[in-house]
Amino acid sequence: MTEAFSSQTPIYLPGGFSFAAVAAGIKPSGRPDLALIEAAEGTSAAAVFTKNRLVAAPVEVGRESLAASRGRVRAVLVNAGNANCATGLAGVKACRQVCEQTAKSLGVAATAVFPSSTGIIGVPLPTEKIVSNLPSLFASRQPSEQKFLEFSDAILTTDTRRKIASAKFKVGKNEVSVLGVAKGSGMIHPQLATMLVYIMTDVAAGPSELKSMLRDACDESFNCISVDGDTSTNDTVLLLASGQSDASLKDPNVKKKFRAALGQVAKSLADQVIRDGEGVQHIIRLHIEGAKSREEALQIARTISHSLLVKTAFAGADPNWGRILAAIGRSGIAVDPSKVSIFISDQLVCRNGVSCPFDAAQAHAELAKPECKITVRLRRGRKSIVFTTTDLTAEYVRINADYST
Amino acid sequence: MTEAFSSQTPIYLPGGFSFAAVAAGIKPSGRPDLALIEAAEGTSAAAVFTKNRLVAAPVEVGRESLAASRGRVRAVLVNAGNANCATGLAGVKACRQVCEQTAKSLGVAATAVFPSSTGIIGVPLPTEKIVSNLPSLFASRQPSEQKFLEFSDAILTTDTRRKIASAKFKVGKNEVSVLGVAKGSGMIHPQLATMLVYIMTDVAAGPSELKSMLRDACDESFNCISVDGDTSTNDTVLLLASGQSDASLKDPNVKKKFRAALGQVAKSLADQVIRDGEGVQHIIRLHIEGAKSREEALQIARTISHSLLVKTAFAGADPNWGRILAAIGRSGIAVDPSKVSIFISDQLVCRNGVSCPFDAAQAHAELAKPECKITVRLRRGRKSIVFTTTDLTAEYVRINADYST
Repeated sequence: MTEAFSSQTPIYLPGGFSFAAVAAGIKPSGRPDLALIEAAEGTSAAAVFTKNRLVAAPVEVGRESLAASRGRVRAVLVNAGNANCATGLAGVKACRQVCEQTAKSLGVAATAVFPSSTGIIGVPLPTEKIVSNLPSLFASRQPSEQKFLEFSDAILTTDTRRKIASAKFKVGKNEVSVLGVAKGSGMIHPQLATMLVYIMTDVAAGPSELKSMLRDACDESFNCISVDGDTSTNDTVLLLASGQSDASLKDPNVKKKFRAALGQVAKSLADQVIRDGEGVQHIIRLHIEGAKSREEALQIARTISHSLLVKTAFAGADPNWGRILAAIGRSGIAVDPSKVSIFISDQLVCRNGVSCPFDAAQAHAELAKPECKITVRLRRGRKSIVFTTTDLTAEYVRINADYST
Repeated sequence: MTEAFSSQTPIYLPGGFSFAAVAAGIKPSGRPDLALIEAAEGTSAAAVFTKNRLVAAPVEVGRESLAASRGRVRAVLVNAGNANCATGLAGVKACRQVCEQTAKSLGVAATAVFPSSTGIIGVPLPTEKIVSNLPSLFASRQPSEQKFLEFSDAILTTDTRRKIASAKFKVGKNEVSVLGVAKGSGMIHPQLATMLVYIMTDVAAGPSELKSMLRDACDESFNCISVDGDTSTNDTVLLLASGQSDASLKDPNVKKKFRAALGQVAKSLADQVIRDGEGVQHIIRLHIEGAKSREEALQIARTISHSLLVKTAFAGADPNWGRILAAIGRSGIAVDPSKVSIFISDQLVCRNGVSCPFDAAQAHAELAKPECKITVRLRRGRKSIVFTTTDLTAEYVRINADYST
């Protein structure tokens, strides 16, 4: 199994998918902003969406279409530059119109078209620009690495780099490929822009099997990262399986290997999203150990990750473990602080809730690295998680404060 | 009734209280850092403490002493420069020792001494410095405005200014004074420093009456402000009533006027704390209207207040209401976004969850003022609250990232 980061690493194209991208004039920059994945007949699909109650029109339409088609998708149409969010009933109609036009051009049902939008909110979707560019979009589609890379670039907004990951495995004579692409700078965009993730594979699977695999993969990847705690209104992760590899999830061996490959691709994409967070200098891997349940470990990890005092300490590579302990104390979990120990990298800095002598210069040096591990031992139970978060820099504030004024 | 801000406004000294402050060498700056309130015999007391599960030794000891003395306090001893937090059992013993020495000098029970500490955490309390300076502290105590101001300054840590408020009212021939003092820069200090509030009055009241009055006053003041969502380990609000005015809370007329005076002093102190927040440029008054309950209004207000995207938009005076709506959407309350309207000052900027035309330049100008009102109408019920928060500036990040390294 091989993992692919950025452009110098291989891309394993699964059978059954074509890609295209054109510039439709939605992004003010004039760069490509309308992108297509076409999927072969019989492709199964599963998706997870934002948990925000404010959801963009494409999330609403995409969820309905997946239900109506019973998890069958023939095309994914993404526009960047406009989120089609807080646009009311008109926004939903605009989204449906775009799906219908796409479906007509491809000769499929409208519910087989899965829509995504990312960009500014509260501005009507420019349907005319989208619809008039569909013919050139369809004309250029190809099952090629080049076209996949064009797709990967067209869906970006304020991202500074494309985010792709790929894995493959063999079962007997059959080879299965998994190829993922993401956009998002850690849910921290000025325009509420969004994390969009598309993962394609040629394994054979039904929609409900895919859904359960996708949920597990998300739990260990996209649900374990946080830049600023703000949840976008458009977040979407879509998994498509064309079945063209002849390997099926019904085979336990395939299932096991596919689970690993999918998990690897999802984790890599989650990492790429968080590394591209605005103003991010340091990545922190929070190892929460000895929790009673995964849920309480997550709640503690999120409270630490969202603490401004902790995040600014990370920015200064400051081994200020008291801020971490205080965040744990207000997490809402009935933690006994006198049982908590904290490590910065391999160094114990707080034993049973109390200061212990440590080499502050070394702890500072560890925290100053691009990636640092912090371990919190709760001594409440046996559950552990790894949660990835970032520092909070003055650069983040500048980017987000200077946005529209 | 008159309200007193800063030094040019009057201070109404309630009967029964003396004050003192000395430099004991706990603050590295060498400024006064050990402070005393002595209260007359028969003084009733009530306190509210941090909800953080990690509590400093003085919070633990103070809570126990108040219970043991059944709400009787004869002295408050505050040190600044050391929080006596995350110091384990040794910290509790150190705190008890200081209380015992104070009690011995005054000839009162140890449980009648209420301790407070604020400053760096994880460092042992320098009891020797405190105990050796008690005689000079007691020798200098006086029931004077000058000594009260010295007390007000000695309890500060990284605050940029003293925080005091005062009110008085008449009932028949009796005059009642309420005098409050606070320290804290909005719970956002590098050293986890703390909000400490002491409010003194000469009204006659039992501890349980005081407790209920104090809780109500805190709900409308200190519980309705947020700078960064981090809760200190030492937060304490103490209310002391000497009874020397001959007006009693048993008189409904006194009770009503006292409630108003206490509320006014608490709100003024809360405002002064938030205005002194690190890097704060703008104060935002969030009016949450049409909630089903006070609790859900608070939860929504806090989610908006803690959103980095919202806070950075405030820093840039950016009328980006979409960030506010998205924060409401992820607050955990079952809000229907299509019923939510948002006003910046008096201008409607979002009607029923959808963009509506507004004068962006005017909205920007309103947000650029030192104080701006934002109204969120939920259309779920009849409860409203006003919650005060701040912007998040690059200056905040600089202060908190550059702390110890």
